[in-house]
Amino acid sequence: MTMNRQAFLDHRFLGCQQEPQDAGIWVFGAPFDGTVTFRPGTRFGPEAMRRESIGLETYSPYQDLDLEEDMKIADLGDLDLPFGNRDGCLDLIGQTVGDIVDRGRRPFMVGGEHLVSLPAVLAVHRAHPDLCLVHFDAHTDLRAEYLGEERSHSSVIRRIWDQLGDGRIWQFGIRSGTREEFSWASGGHTTMERFRADTVSDARKALEGRPVYVTVDLDVLDPSVFAGTGTPEAGGLSFHELLEGLLGLSGLQIVGADVVELAPHYDPSGVSTAVACKVMRELLLLMGRCV
Amino acid sequence: MTMNRQAFLDHRFLGCQQEPQDAGIWVFGAPFDGTVTFRPGTRFGPEAMRRESIGLETYSPYQDLDLEEDMKIADLGDLDLPFGNRDGCLDLIGQTVGDIVDRGRRPFMVGGEHLVSLPAVLAVHRAHPDLCLVHFDAHTDLRAEYLGEERSHSSVIRRIWDQLGDGRIWQFGIRSGTREEFSWASGGHTTMERFRADTVSDARKALEGRPVYVTVDLDVLDPSVFAGTGTPEAGGLSFHELLEGLLGLSGLQIVGADVVELAPHYDPSGVSTAVACKVMRELLLLMGRCV
Amino acid sequence: MTMNRQAFLDHRFLGCQQEPQDAGIWVFGAPFDGTVTFRPGTRFGPEAMRRESIGLETYSPYQDLDLEEDMKIADLGDLDLPFGNRDGCLDLIGQTVGDIVDRGRRPFMVGGEHLVSLPAVLAVHRAHPDLCLVHFDAHTDLRAEYLGEERSHSSVIRRIWDQLGDGRIWQFGIRSGTREEFSWASGGHTTMERFRADTVSDARKALEGRPVYVTVDLDVLDPSVFAGTGTPEAGGLSFHELLEGLLGLSGLQIVGADVVELAPHYDPSGVSTAVACKVMRELLLLMGRCV
Amino acid sequence: MTMNRQAFLDHRFLGCQQEPQDAGIWVFGAPFDGTVTFRPGTRFGPEAMRRESIGLETYSPYQDLDLEEDMKIADLGDLDLPFGNRDGCLDLIGQTVGDIVDRGRRPFMVGGEHLVSLPAVLAVHRAHPDLCLVHFDAHTDLRAEYLGEERSHSSVIRRIWDQLGDGRIWQFGIRSGTREEFSWASGGHTTMERFRADTVSDARKALEGRPVYVTVDLDVLDPSVFAGTGTPEAGGLSFHELLEGLLGLSGLQIVGADVVELAPHYDPSGVSTAVACKVMRELLLLMGRCV
Amino acid sequence: MTMNRQAFLDHRFLGCQQEPQDAGIWVFGAPFDGTVTFRPGTRFGPEAMRRESIGLETYSPYQDLDLEEDMKIADLGDLDLPFGNRDGCLDLIGQTVGDIVDRGRRPFMVGGEHLVSLPAVLAVHRAHPDLCLVHFDAHTDLRAEYLGEERSHSSVIRRIWDQLGDGRIWQFGIRSGTREEFSWASGGHTTMERFRADTVSDARKALEGRPVYVTVDLDVLDPSVFAGTGTPEAGGLSFHELLEGLLGLSGLQIVGADVVELAPHYDPSGVSTAVACKVMRELLLLMGRCV
Amino acid sequence: MTMNRQAFLDHRFLGCQQEPQDAGIWVFGAPFDGTVTFRPGTRFGPEAMRRESIGLETYSPYQDLDLEEDMKIADLGDLDLPFGNRDGCLDLIGQTVGDIVDRGRRPFMVGGEHLVSLPAVLAVHRAHPDLCLVHFDAHTDLRAEYLGEERSHSSVIRRIWDQLGDGRIWQFGIRSGTREEFSWASGGHTTMERFRADTVSDARKALEGRPVYVTVDLDVLDPSVFAGTGTPEAGGLSFHELLEGLLGLSGLQIVGADVVELAPHYDPSGVSTAVACKVMRELLLLMGRCV
Repeated sequence: MTMNRQAFLDHRFLGCQQEPQDAGIWVFGAPFDGTVTFRPGTRFGPEAMRRESIGLETYSPYQDLDLEEDMKIADLGDLDLPFGNRDGCLDLIGQTVGDIVDRGRRPFMVGGEHLVSLPAVLAVHRAHPDLCLVHFDAHTDLRAEYLGEERSHSSVIRRIWDQLGDGRIWQFGIRSGTREEFSWASGGHTTMERFRADTVSDARKALEGRPVYVTVDLDVLDPSVFAGTGTPEAGGLSFHELLEGLLGLSGLQIVGADVVELAPHYDPSGVSTAVACKVMRELLLLMGRCV
Repeated sequence: MTMNRQAFLDHRFLGCQQEPQDAGIWVFGAPFDGTVTFRPGTRFGPEAMRRESIGLETYSPYQDLDLEEDMKIADLGDLDLPFGNRDGCLDLIGQTVGDIVDRGRRPFMVGGEHLVSLPAVLAVHRAHPDLCLVHFDAHTDLRAEYLGEERSHSSVIRRIWDQLGDGRIWQFGIRSGTREEFSWASGGHTTMERFRADTVSDARKALEGRPVYVTVDLDVLDPSVFAGTGTPEAGGLSFHELLEGLLGLSGLQIVGADVVELAPHYDPSGVSTAVACKVMRELLLLMGRCV
Repeated sequence: MTMNRQAFLDHRFLGCQQEPQDAGIWVFGAPFDGTVTFRPGTRFGPEAMRRESIGLETYSPYQDLDLEEDMKIADLGDLDLPFGNRDGCLDLIGQTVGDIVDRGRRPFMVGGEHLVSLPAVLAVHRAHPDLCLVHFDAHTDLRAEYLGEERSHSSVIRRIWDQLGDGRIWQFGIRSGTREEFSWASGGHTTMERFRADTVSDARKALEGRPVYVTVDLDVLDPSVFAGTGTPEAGGLSFHELLEGLLGLSGLQIVGADVVELAPHYDPSGVSTAVACKVMRELLLLMGRCV
Repeated sequence: MTMNRQAFLDHRFLGCQQEPQDAGIWVFGAPFDGTVTFRPGTRFGPEAMRRESIGLETYSPYQDLDLEEDMKIADLGDLDLPFGNRDGCLDLIGQTVGDIVDRGRRPFMVGGEHLVSLPAVLAVHRAHPDLCLVHFDAHTDLRAEYLGEERSHSSVIRRIWDQLGDGRIWQFGIRSGTREEFSWASGGHTTMERFRADTVSDARKALEGRPVYVTVDLDVLDPSVFAGTGTPEAGGLSFHELLEGLLGLSGLQIVGADVVELAPHYDPSGVSTAVACKVMRELLLLMGRCV
Repeated sequence: MTMNRQAFLDHRFLGCQQEPQDAGIWVFGAPFDGTVTFRPGTRFGPEAMRRESIGLETYSPYQDLDLEEDMKIADLGDLDLPFGNRDGCLDLIGQTVGDIVDRGRRPFMVGGEHLVSLPAVLAVHRAHPDLCLVHFDAHTDLRAEYLGEERSHSSVIRRIWDQLGDGRIWQFGIRSGTREEFSWASGGHTTMERFRADTVSDARKALEGRPVYVTVDLDVLDPSVFAGTGTPEAGGLSFHELLEGLLGLSGLQIVGADVVELAPHYDPSGVSTAVACKVMRELLLLMGRCV
Repeated sequence: MTMNRQAFLDHRFLGCQQEPQDAGIWVFGAPFDGTVTFRPGTRFGPEAMRRESIGLETYSPYQDLDLEEDMKIADLGDLDLPFGNRDGCLDLIGQTVGDIVDRGRRPFMVGGEHLVSLPAVLAVHRAHPDLCLVHFDAHTDLRAEYLGEERSHSSVIRRIWDQLGDGRIWQFGIRSGTREEFSWASGGHTTMERFRADTVSDARKALEGRPVYVTVDLDVLDPSVFAGTGTPEAGGLSFHELLEGLLGLSGLQIVGADVVELAPHYDPSGVSTAVACKVMRELLLLMGRCV
């Protein structure tokens, strides 16, 4: 079989063309949206990002780094999740992240709804008991329970806190939640900056030398720049504000990361998907700078 | 408080303005799409139909009947379902239908995905042990299980068969399924007409004098006329073919009915929602002729 | 000034490039949708058709005629209507059609909502007192009044009947209206075929030798092929059925015509606009055969 | 009749679930777009906001107030307007607002095009002769007449000025109009800030102790954050800038308010509707703080 | 490296999961739309079909065959074409098809615009000098040249005729072209059925025992069922009519095939893509029956 | 022929109603998108802008100038380009601009993809050998070649540099390109400001008294305000930032200009087209101030 496979298009995230054994970061998609109460569709996020990422350059003028020239990244594809079975989905995600960590690689997950971060963070936590979380989001995600259910997208950070405890979680850009959630957070359980992400440098100092997981719920961005999400919430960060927040983490030991909550169908212009890809590129490159 | 409420728009399905105590048919929405594996969104179906139904007339020139002048129908609204909890949703639907039947009314349910028909049919079956089912659909829905799960939209008719047994189910318009499903059906468990609905008169004869539940998965229609559904399947019925199939049931004792699987967002023209409303109008009027 | 204007794209309906003085048929747009109760947008119809008509050929294999080679047609552009002033709009349309008729040309109007046909037909009627009307539509349009208003899209044919009287109006494809409208029509005021257009040949015989105005409300087509309209009504004609209906009029003396009710925004695929252009092409060519 | 209505979804604006007799603010929709010259569709605004508002929280972290816990608001539904009859529509709006004021409640209207503010403001003015107007908008809306018509969306503030007179109207965010309109305004008839809303505190001082009506034409927002409007005008306010403008009015006696000009179909992402709901929530809460 | 790749989703056309060396039919995409004059976008066709094909079953109740159980098919992916260089693109397609044929496999190509069929047919023709072509299309595609250019989508069948000559080409469903094209065809150069595909059995007899290439321009379908194409042309085949046409070829020696002209973006409902996948499934299975 | 043509709508860009002989600026459209590698559609840009520009006012409160009262501008229409023949298209554009310059007028071109600027700038350069270029863009457009091709949208500024040489090109807003392009630019070949347009005043000083061509690739705007483009790139200019950049050029001798890269179909809200029209209005008025 000598036919030239070079002539055929690849189907992996931009610049993630390494074979797994050669790569230090393993990207995978977790297309799960099973606990969404309002507008579903984040299950289509990873595939849309893979497809549209070719509109981007591999080079970032913000960081002067290139996904192909300066990094070693593999794309494993999307997990084949047992739809309708929430706990089975979360278990498979947790096992996958556990496997990646066990092999000495760092995971980069693409959601899916935010609940997918729960098993991923917990799997990384098992390998890094002093793990801290940096959380960009429009929503608090701190409900004790939601509609009688403890494991939902509205409770994901609260469930992570159950394991990590006080003083481990930094939240940025938060602008929506119940009075109880804001009140609970301000009781010292998490460090929350409302509306903006201007205090990342404070977090950075506190996180120096500790293993960090970064979770970016893309709806932290203003809906003007990121319309493709289930619950758009006005008054968010501009792309530059989020980028500055992320770059403010430069030099930390990022042991895992994810970007979640792109629901591409709600933005027929494709801009949300393009923005998600660019955030992902910058976050991947940041992991390159941070090791 | 004498302010004239006549000046304010009503928010009920076209022609379903009776108070419940005065009505013989109770309409309600079951906005559930929790087991969908491909494209979700039928949760938005009932609300879209309620909103768009005002584009229709209450009078049908096909049946020379009028929803307001000749019928007594109430619209209860949509059920407030516990999202993410499949069994809780199905239980609430079953209780609601059971309540309606217990009060001597006939239920008309608007889905939601097809799995909502399971608890509804079973609740009607409890009151009518010799219940038969007439099923219009593109898909067999006869899987023994799907992805390890017994209660999904792909198995709904099989689960109903578990209770009703052989010789009780007539299927029309079927054009998609596994080889096993088609083979199982042709073993005598259901009476299935593939591709078309030309043999309704045969079913009518067999059903004479027996209580009948009619379930219409709207994707039985060709996607040309009904694009707003999760899994469009080419080669379906025209509107006239479905209408003739339904009117062929005239005179039977229809004790319950539903229309399911409208996912309005996939058809931005609004045609699918309008078609769903017209099917619903004709099926409601048919219930009026049938008692 | 010798710069070559050939290099610049024209902006007229396909094949309607004659100067007015050289043309026997004058096309113009009447972008009015002021009495629409449900979904507006037919105001964008003529412009969309002008723009998209270039996707068609000028040659019809159905009639073996070509808009450019066999016809002399001018496109005057769209009327600049005083929006928000219904009566002013209708007056301007009536004057325009009157002017066209006075100059010995035949008008072809592109709507706009169906009410634009009222002043156009009346202006032609003044020149041809024995005028008859051929009407393709999903809706009866025969209300005595609608929401207290005598001049609306729901009453347009009734208002025309006020002038033309009994025995002058043939209606095809009708499938929506109130019980009263159907009943009134069957009292002998109009000749109505419900649901289909199979009896055009009967009309043709009766119309032989009399001046005829043809009005095509495009929603007579099934919404599968024509989704871009305010009130889609399932169960309509296929394109071929409408075409056969139109060609069945061949040889009559068509002294004016219109196509109305395209609301292009509701069909993002552009199919409705393309279909409208093709209906218009065939109707224009039919006028060529008929003189 | 004991069936549990709790199981059925409500259809009112988020957090406006009080019965009218218990509420101090009465919300209603005025789905009128009859004088629009360019792109219609604001008639769909109130219904879309009612439906999509469930994606918001009732709690505002900006004001630390909650629509349900801290306010008493009723939603009356949408007015059933006589379409095609502009003056009849305006009269019904004026009577409704007059009724609300007469009963000692404060009106909150959801448009519809901006012309609906005219009868609403005049009805409030009859009860509060020293009424002042705060106006957020992209457009001057100060034409003496438009296309020969005095009562159109382009003249609404000019018509209000006819009644209120000089020194009563503050305009913010204005960035589009004719030279004559800008010139007329700067002659002292209104207090206009162009492009921004930085001078609200000046207005606040002047308005202290006087009854104020706040009208928000949502197109004052930049089209990046609010695309769903008929005439998008680049260079507008961010959500935060509008929010700060509104909160700058805190403590004033707001006796009536409206938000207008959402045309939801033009923004298929749903972001514009979500933004409109959030502006409405904040403005409602502001009324709670202001009494 | 033992991580279980079964957990990850595949990215190949439905049922085309064989490794190339094990497969007799090789599928590949040719995402080229470089000569389109009106609405581009067929470049996105193959990728959309690959992604959406999972909504279909592998089993066909029409043919009682299954893509996985009864066939051996490999999907090579999309060609990486040198955009903007028409001749380079066509050359690469021709080489690819030549390679496939040389290895003893049969090619199945997914377009792209119709011009991609030219190099594919010519490459198959080199191996099968007595090759015949069966052509389903709305358009004649027989122009001698178009806008001064000999190699465009409007001339593709004419260019193929240049090589195959008279008596080798059967055309079905044709309903658009210039007078010259129809006239040229009726001069005996091709066998053309206009408007329908009722005479396939005649073609079948003539083609018995000869190598056949089948090219399906999907716009042969009526735009009601296939809206996602650059130049929708009303009056086409229903899905069943096309299916019957294809199945009428059963038993012939099909040595190559393609489906072209899906432009998925023009049909946001996804129906066109689903229809294209179903046509492809049936045509692949037909190749299985035909060898 | 005395029929009043005033009644019919004009089809020219807002405020560009002068006859060519009376106008100093000649606007024309260049609907070319032949070298696009990712998402095509800029061919529809000029027509969309012409159609939607009527939503704008002719008066600019930013510059206190009016397109009709203060300027003399003609709209020639769109060039009728030989699609599929890149070099023929570019030649026709170059000849047209050359003709305009030869007649002593200034050209204003509306793209189309950015490559159309190449022949336009070169034609102006022939008349003004010391021409300088001001370039607003998200992308460097400085590739020596792209996919083996020297004349593509990715190389347009590099090709212009081939003629103009070092020290003649100012670039603003650049945020995407390869490492090589950024490196090449910083070698002194162009003056590039990355990410923003804050240094326009520096350019203005250098350009005083020299002939300037201004090319605005609209994707320099943030995708939040301009989604309708083939390759949206997050992190761009706000409308105000671009406007300030343009107004910073006030007083220079602008001898030609263009706005390019609107692909209107990707932004169904119409905002991108409206924004493009407003940029065009301001740039046209700027040319009025600058002579």
